[in-house]
Amino acid sequence: MRNPRVIKLLRDRLPADSVVTDTRALTPFETDGLTAIRQKPWVVALPETVEQVRAVLQICRDNAVPVVTRGAGTGLSGGARPLSDGVLLTLTKMNRILELDGEACVARVEPGVPNARITEAAAPLGLYYAPDPSSQIACSIGGNVAENSGGVHCLKYGLTLNNVLGMTVQTLEGDELVLGGKTLDAPGYDLMAAMVGSEGMLGVVTEVVVKLLPEPFAKRVLLAAFDDIRRAGDAVAAIIRGGVIPAGLEMMDALAINAAEDYVNAGYPRDAAAILLCELDGTEAGVRTDVDIVRNILDEAGAVEVRIASDAAEREALWRGRKAAFPAAGRIAPDYYCMDGTIPRRELGRVLAEIGALSERFGLSVANVFHAGDGNLHPLILYDSNRPGEIHKAEEFGSEILKLCVARGGTVTGEHGVGVEKLDAMCAQFTDAELEQFHRLKEAFDPAGLMNPGKAIPTLARCSELGGMHVRGGALPHAELDRF
Amino acid sequence: MRNPRVIKLLRDRLPADSVVTDTRALTPFETDGLTAIRQKPWVVALPETVEQVRAVLQICRDNAVPVVTRGAGTGLSGGARPLSDGVLLTLTKMNRILELDGEACVARVEPGVPNARITEAAAPLGLYYAPDPSSQIACSIGGNVAENSGGVHCLKYGLTLNNVLGMTVQTLEGDELVLGGKTLDAPGYDLMAAMVGSEGMLGVVTEVVVKLLPEPFAKRVLLAAFDDIRRAGDAVAAIIRGGVIPAGLEMMDALAINAAEDYVNAGYPRDAAAILLCELDGTEAGVRTDVDIVRNILDEAGAVEVRIASDAAEREALWRGRKAAFPAAGRIAPDYYCMDGTIPRRELGRVLAEIGALSERFGLSVANVFHAGDGNLHPLILYDSNRPGEIHKAEEFGSEILKLCVARGGTVTGEHGVGVEKLDAMCAQFTDAELEQFHRLKEAFDPAGLMNPGKAIPTLARCSELGGMHVRGGALPHAELDRF
Repeated sequence: MRNPRVIKLLRDRLPADSVVTDTRALTPFETDGLTAIRQKPWVVALPETVEQVRAVLQICRDNAVPVVTRGAGTGLSGGARPLSDGVLLTLTKMNRILELDGEACVARVEPGVPNARITEAAAPLGLYYAPDPSSQIACSIGGNVAENSGGVHCLKYGLTLNNVLGMTVQTLEGDELVLGGKTLDAPGYDLMAAMVGSEGMLGVVTEVVVKLLPEPFAKRVLLAAFDDIRRAGDAVAAIIRGGVIPAGLEMMDALAINAAEDYVNAGYPRDAAAILLCELDGTEAGVRTDVDIVRNILDEAGAVEVRIASDAAEREALWRGRKAAFPAAGRIAPDYYCMDGTIPRRELGRVLAEIGALSERFGLSVANVFHAGDGNLHPLILYDSNRPGEIHKAEEFGSEILKLCVARGGTVTGEHGVGVEKLDAMCAQFTDAELEQFHRLKEAFDPAGLMNPGKAIPTLARCSELGGMHVRGGALPHAELDRF
Repeated sequence: MRNPRVIKLLRDRLPADSVVTDTRALTPFETDGLTAIRQKPWVVALPETVEQVRAVLQICRDNAVPVVTRGAGTGLSGGARPLSDGVLLTLTKMNRILELDGEACVARVEPGVPNARITEAAAPLGLYYAPDPSSQIACSIGGNVAENSGGVHCLKYGLTLNNVLGMTVQTLEGDELVLGGKTLDAPGYDLMAAMVGSEGMLGVVTEVVVKLLPEPFAKRVLLAAFDDIRRAGDAVAAIIRGGVIPAGLEMMDALAINAAEDYVNAGYPRDAAAILLCELDGTEAGVRTDVDIVRNILDEAGAVEVRIASDAAEREALWRGRKAAFPAAGRIAPDYYCMDGTIPRRELGRVLAEIGALSERFGLSVANVFHAGDGNLHPLILYDSNRPGEIHKAEEFGSEILKLCVARGGTVTGEHGVGVEKLDAMCAQFTDAELEQFHRLKEAFDPAGLMNPGKAIPTLARCSELGGMHVRGGALPHAELDRF
């Protein structure tokens, strides 16, 4: 499979330092953010231009070599896991901002541009790019497109899908597709939407046109403490229902609160069962009213304390603990496993209670830190990989959480993607007919099946081996539901 | 082709009055909103249940009969044009609201439910469905999904794509696909997004889950008059750039203003070259500030008059003329041809001037009434079909407008779809590789090619016969651009 001719062809078409085969130099590419899974690629290609990307794809097609596309490698589901006989097409060198159009409020960028750099570049124009994954300093816009990434502000401003207007895609077949553009809607099937979240399975994005938003005139952050986690969950649904869309609405449970306090001293109430952090933005007067409305809802929902941060320093302090929550969890346990299920908001209180019950059953702690407004859970399962079998217990626990999300009408991933991590969970979420349709779509873009093979969509064979427990909103047999 | 056995099979599986073959009874189904094109279907099937839809599709598949799906028949691009040897699958009898969930802010509805009825049903809960096409009293949610319909409020709240959370699709192959759901995002390729706007070419939507929004606390409408149409266009870009997103931002030119005045007496300034109507919504205090901000921008942009409507009656009066603009145009000319191109907002002023020049060249008047905030133009070309050749002149004029939109970086349709009307324009917008990719996607859903054949995506042969003038944002040869 490892035909040396391919390396030679790559070296002929790419700059000398853009083809990496040295074992030591390959090490950083062994894994993405899902570090439990490691695999050295055969060769890493680091093209600098669209022409070079097309050359890599052509070489792969001509020689039937599989190709895995990688951005900054911050993905959390192993979507960029390399193949031992494949090319790892890494786009970090394609990191130029090609155009900033302040009047049309768009930026045209190469895929390797880090998410946060778009906002940095647009700031002098008073504009910003809304989606803000936790990894935004490092993660690339191409990776964001591949995973349909979210972040704290996607409650109000949408996921990557809602903030990308157009893109240029190179297919393995050698076609260049220009999808969407600077205008509202494009005719024809929405191939651009199909590309967003497709985890490198359909084509390689070589240019992205993103929407920029004017910086809001004012921002406020509220912190609400609850002595009951279910009540906090119900407050989230009440806020959304109340007619104000917060810029962000985040939740942390007791374990997460105390881990964050130990780490960064954010001033959170340590005795709370849960806190909500609610950011409101808009005009000065508009935000003032919104704060009143949300405050009333929080009081009615039984918050034991509500704090309001007005200036930038106070806001920053309230967010500090939330932003540090993941590393903070890393300090209270040797390892953690970050899950990413979604559920309908109304189920928040109930599902959190059920995760608590699972935690007792498995004997593993869970810190809950998540995008509550979206119903996007991030339970952090704490474990110690040095204790024999504990990693498997954590994985099993995680898989139960995902099944629970699906059973309550949710999905197995909100923003981290399927990658290799959630292939089995996909069997629970989708029927054979739906999975078949996914495979047919893949074939329509990549008939040779060489783009990131084995990721994102499980084969029907895999699902049938798993026993095919297909669950969906109430469709799960009651015997199964009783286990939760 | 017209195998009588098919009629018998349909009668066996559907209620007696759900299979229409009588010539007179078929007349209302000859055309959709694009009335210039008429064709009697062979047979109309009006299923009442999902099972009956599946039966119709199975019969069509087994007998290789093409099937055109139709909602309320209000589409403006001929997407529901019947086939003389095909089944017209009409979903108007499937018009039940299946679930209203006030807590989760969603409604689950059958495809034949009229758009406006969702808001009516949700109103007692203080909720509404945002997309509001002009035809909203009649048009069905299934048709909205097929065309990715917009409306006045999609500037702030998005197109149908942004307001649909999930759907159930029946494929011709006999599969049922449940796509999306009540939560934020679903894993796997975004098949739901591919379905939205697919004009009945991929499958039949038998259930839709839509997002409901809380009614805003307050609304204001501003009217601004300009003595120069280009200045009005530039004001639109300035408002969006100013940090306030209006709920709606509409524009009318002098001809449209006067036609509307003659018809409904809305009180518009008859001597203005253009007016903007800007709706702001949110909380009471928030809207007050937004009005100040927008008012300042309008003054700076050179508005000669700005009026503000505060109460419901005043707001209604200001909107009355806009809502009556299409029938009003119908009063000043025997016929009109409604176009639907999009352009980047910044090009508004320039493109309107260019349409004016085209109007002189063709000797046909144009009334411009459109969703300015989205850059979604609706030029109404006025003509008289009784004058020999004038309809062809109008069509040629329309086609020039669409080419102009594409040349300025826009698209050939904003919200009315391609249907049969804009097949040639698609050749100008897309390359062969892109069109091929569309066809491959179609094949992935409908390998037999029986779903609404011949619509939405032109064949490569058709485009090559047209001479394949492919234009895109600046890519048009200068010799061509000089013509505009």
